[in-house]
Amino acid sequence: MGYNLTQKIIRSHLVSGTMQRGQEIAIRVDQTLTQDATGTMAYLQFEAMGIPRVKTELSVSYVDHNTLQTGFENADDHRFLQSTAAKFGVYFSRAGNGICHQVHLERFGIPGKTLLGSDSHTPTAGGLGMLAIGVGGLDVAVAMGGGPFHLIMPGVINVRLHGRLAPWATAKDVILEVLRRLTVKGGVGKILEYGGEGIKYLTVPERATITNMGAETGATTSIFPSDEVTRAFLRAQGREEVWVELGPDPDAVYDEVLDIDLSTLEPLVACPHSPDNVKPVREVGPLAVDQVVIGSCTNSSYLDLMKVAAILKGKTVHPNVSLVIAPGSRQVLTMLAQNGALADLVSAGARILECACGPCIGMGQAPPSGGVSVRTINRNFKGRSGTADARVYLASPETAAATALTGRLTDPRELGTPPVVALPEKFHVDDRMILPPADNPDDVEIVRGPNIKPLPVAGPLPESIEGRVLIKVGDNITTDHIMPAGARVLPLRSNIPAMSEYVFTAVDPSFPRRAREAGGGIIVGGENYGQGSSREHAALVPMYLGVKAVLAKSFARIHRDNLINFGILPLTFIEPADYDRLERDDVLQIDGLHRALREGAELEVKNVTRGFTIKARAQLTPRQVEIILAGGLLNYTRRARA
Amino acid sequence: MGYNLTQKIIRSHLVSGTMQRGQEIAIRVDQTLTQDATGTMAYLQFEAMGIPRVKTELSVSYVDHNTLQTGFENADDHRFLQSTAAKFGVYFSRAGNGICHQVHLERFGIPGKTLLGSDSHTPTAGGLGMLAIGVGGLDVAVAMGGGPFHLIMPGVINVRLHGRLAPWATAKDVILEVLRRLTVKGGVGKILEYGGEGIKYLTVPERATITNMGAETGATTSIFPSDEVTRAFLRAQGREEVWVELGPDPDAVYDEVLDIDLSTLEPLVACPHSPDNVKPVREVGPLAVDQVVIGSCTNSSYLDLMKVAAILKGKTVHPNVSLVIAPGSRQVLTMLAQNGALADLVSAGARILECACGPCIGMGQAPPSGGVSVRTINRNFKGRSGTADARVYLASPETAAATALTGRLTDPRELGTPPVVALPEKFHVDDRMILPPADNPDDVEIVRGPNIKPLPVAGPLPESIEGRVLIKVGDNITTDHIMPAGARVLPLRSNIPAMSEYVFTAVDPSFPRRAREAGGGIIVGGENYGQGSSREHAALVPMYLGVKAVLAKSFARIHRDNLINFGILPLTFIEPADYDRLERDDVLQIDGLHRALREGAELEVKNVTRGFTIKARAQLTPRQVEIILAGGLLNYTRRARA
Repeated sequence: MGYNLTQKIIRSHLVSGTMQRGQEIAIRVDQTLTQDATGTMAYLQFEAMGIPRVKTELSVSYVDHNTLQTGFENADDHRFLQSTAAKFGVYFSRAGNGICHQVHLERFGIPGKTLLGSDSHTPTAGGLGMLAIGVGGLDVAVAMGGGPFHLIMPGVINVRLHGRLAPWATAKDVILEVLRRLTVKGGVGKILEYGGEGIKYLTVPERATITNMGAETGATTSIFPSDEVTRAFLRAQGREEVWVELGPDPDAVYDEVLDIDLSTLEPLVACPHSPDNVKPVREVGPLAVDQVVIGSCTNSSYLDLMKVAAILKGKTVHPNVSLVIAPGSRQVLTMLAQNGALADLVSAGARILECACGPCIGMGQAPPSGGVSVRTINRNFKGRSGTADARVYLASPETAAATALTGRLTDPRELGTPPVVALPEKFHVDDRMILPPADNPDDVEIVRGPNIKPLPVAGPLPESIEGRVLIKVGDNITTDHIMPAGARVLPLRSNIPAMSEYVFTAVDPSFPRRAREAGGGIIVGGENYGQGSSREHAALVPMYLGVKAVLAKSFARIHRDNLINFGILPLTFIEPADYDRLERDDVLQIDGLHRALREGAELEVKNVTRGFTIKARAQLTPRQVEIILAGGLLNYTRRARA
Repeated sequence: MGYNLTQKIIRSHLVSGTMQRGQEIAIRVDQTLTQDATGTMAYLQFEAMGIPRVKTELSVSYVDHNTLQTGFENADDHRFLQSTAAKFGVYFSRAGNGICHQVHLERFGIPGKTLLGSDSHTPTAGGLGMLAIGVGGLDVAVAMGGGPFHLIMPGVINVRLHGRLAPWATAKDVILEVLRRLTVKGGVGKILEYGGEGIKYLTVPERATITNMGAETGATTSIFPSDEVTRAFLRAQGREEVWVELGPDPDAVYDEVLDIDLSTLEPLVACPHSPDNVKPVREVGPLAVDQVVIGSCTNSSYLDLMKVAAILKGKTVHPNVSLVIAPGSRQVLTMLAQNGALADLVSAGARILECACGPCIGMGQAPPSGGVSVRTINRNFKGRSGTADARVYLASPETAAATALTGRLTDPRELGTPPVVALPEKFHVDDRMILPPADNPDDVEIVRGPNIKPLPVAGPLPESIEGRVLIKVGDNITTDHIMPAGARVLPLRSNIPAMSEYVFTAVDPSFPRRAREAGGGIIVGGENYGQGSSREHAALVPMYLGVKAVLAKSFARIHRDNLINFGILPLTFIEPADYDRLERDDVLQIDGLHRALREGAELEVKNVTRGFTIKARAQLTPRQVEIILAGGLLNYTRRARA
């Protein structure tokens, strides 16, 4: 029996465990990436582990999130990151050099290697045939220290692409179709491995759009084979030497199969407020649009923006639409500036933003009150744009550009013949904004601004937990709900006390106060609790507020790992209906934790307030049990090294 | 006896009064401009006056301040401004089209015309031979309604430029030299009229740099003659038909003369924290620099950025310097994108921001804690950058570019031969992002977001004032001290209750609370109180908090006018030493106000707390007395129209 591509890469990196679905395995990590919003914490954690230099083949620290710099905090963090990178042996991609995933794809990704990134869209590099997984910053810190990455062996879905995209149908529409079918929790515990004869018509940037936004299904990652298309991309980046051919064995076995006939796809759009709320563009509307945003790690490649420039050339943005474009990288921006396409974009009325995440994470360009924004980004969670009552639609760059011209959500097929843009023979390669680590790390002093506060660490798990239900939330709660991002909160990422003022405030502004007054407690959640971003702050900051356990119907993968990493117990209901029996402010009590966790036994959760008992399970691997008992991964790792 | 240029333009626009220095005159306003941070209030005021369409020859509403859009407020304001412009007969320059003064110079300025702008750097258009004056928004609203602009006839200083600038000395160094000699209050009550044979070597954008930053001397405005240089600029903008030759009569008389030998100037820099703290670059340092900012209405023209691009081409920004560049207008950006200079800037490592005010007003790109930032902007007041302890140095684009390469404040003469950049024969003209007003204004509905609150209006002045000294401040207090701008506060400009939380907080965080608790009171200030920005919020919001009078040694012009416009009494000490006899929390009482103001008599200010009386004067024109008695210009104007 042959191996699929996922299994091949895992097998070649396997450190412990067996590749049985549902079993805990550990894999060697070749490369890591961090961005500035998660990176400050990751390097504080790495520093706390006391290891002088990273032990990976390559680690890169990017600055792409906090680039507005409305206060001193961001520039302080950038200096801190620049100095830690130099000292710890990490490459540093300066502010303005581009979005981590776009730059990593261009300059660092290698087929067949493993990549761990403290950003949920790390799977972008799967477009190059990497096994690229998004995790919390602490997992990256451990990997930088040479530790393997532990995960539950996922199932592998073979997504078979047949035929070829019709004119104006795009890679974005492929992943929107996948989301339509799988929903935002359909990928949990799985890896999406793309195949089929249709993949040969998709360039690496198009594949990367698909693997990038595969994160929205909850999948562990997504991956394409490495083939001649991959080789052509790497050659154009001046990196052909890292290319290897990689694909599944002919007799590979998969856990599931998903067939998509590319030729039947049409322009799609994800409607508010979920990336899986997908409909054909032509079926939505008429819908007047206030803003169009083209950018983000999903759709800001050279190919994307050249198509947009071709569509906009000689035309004018609709007077009621604010069109903002953030190129994905300095490479993209330079090429557009050199070949005249940028002038075409500006002439058409586009507002050009710095190469960074920007509006995708609510870092500027908030739409007007009640406004409609059509964006090429990956998430349209309520409020993420920075405007609580805005309605955000996710679409391809082509749909976005057509919409910018008409002022209403527009199927680009209305425009006639689509532009033809080919991958360049040679990309503009210039890595001067990527600083190599210092040759003499001992001479590097870490620069700490006043925003960089010491790392809070939990204590060991007690034998019993008693706590009040601080909040009860519904299904598909995102990490944006738990720990908002955006222009106000993101700059505080290295300052946990300051961040704690914002936990759950999007849902319940009284949460931080109540949590503090109660001295912590328990959170009750529905299905897919913690979907979305990889931000470990959605675990770390609740831990800081004294949250001891989350009791939910089910969890998103990264967030569940983050809860464990920070010593918060993730529990699931054995009877989902018990969810309905709990209310806010109920006092819950769980005894005999240590033995029950070690034995994998069910836990009895006593509702002290209402006088009944329900059952829950933790489903932890033995290693995870020890992490939880130690009070989190940092304690556990320190102990292991001691 | 002949007229100087200032007198000629005033004479041709004189509505009332005589051109005697110190006398109140009124002049006809040909053009107005507003920007978004002051404009929302100006159009609310215009609307409150009940006039359907503007009566000026041209009025333009620009969006250039609040372009980060970290919340819904900015986009709401932009929609409001777009709709009011369409309805009231105003041209609307969309976000991304550029900085108001740069665009106005390029596309709208006309030699010999008068321009009133709700921004202190409106004198930029003086580079074209306009009489361009910065005022509060309410004055602009009145002018849009057809009312004349009242001012005290200023003295005219003839600034005679001799010889020609040496290599690497620039227009910025000319105005820095003027500031060094005049200080930040040396221009109060005066107009700087440039002449001398040296002017013929200065292009219009260079002249505009000089007139722009003349605002920092406190001058009413600055102006250059309109000559063949002006004609060439207007021709290159496709607007030669508006050119007229304009200059002083050969026997013109001036109040003062200032001679500057251009050939002796060298690269200069204004050190923290005042634009008049000017030194030769070579005498400052060594000074390690963290950030370089090239942009703002002072230095972001095509010529400026072409020179910067030539300096940076093929080189790399120092690793410790974050170089950010914000082109002044879409015209500039498009031309740089078309001719490859933008690619050179990006290649060198510059971070390119949207064409807007940006970092100059603390709208992003705050330096790190304690950081050093070298900027081509016009003001380096403490904290204005967004970082309270940053040190900001003001310099030419050439000095800034040289500094970006070396990482230390650098005299550009170290670089060897300077680049030669000529004014283009033809600028790229494309006004598609300037929307003309609606043909059918009745059909236009004004769009109001929830951030746009009703306008507070003061009541008539009572016969007696009694109030506590809420704060006592020193000399040269800026409007940034009184009413901070920056990324947090600027978005609130149309929401006075929200803004009132920030009054004086840069100096004393308890001010808003204390003012509220005391039900208002009196402010005591030193020399040149209220220098800097034209923001009328520095009067309007204190009025909202109940401030009834400001007692100072002297005032900056625009702020004094704004105080009067919002019904706050501006009083000066007759004995400056009395300043030392007042303390915070002293209760002051002034009786018999109406008669004393009408008669121009001295006022007795009783210090109730300490039991003594001092003398003060208001020095109001009869018209200003009526405005103050009415409770401000809006009440006065409404009454006049009733």
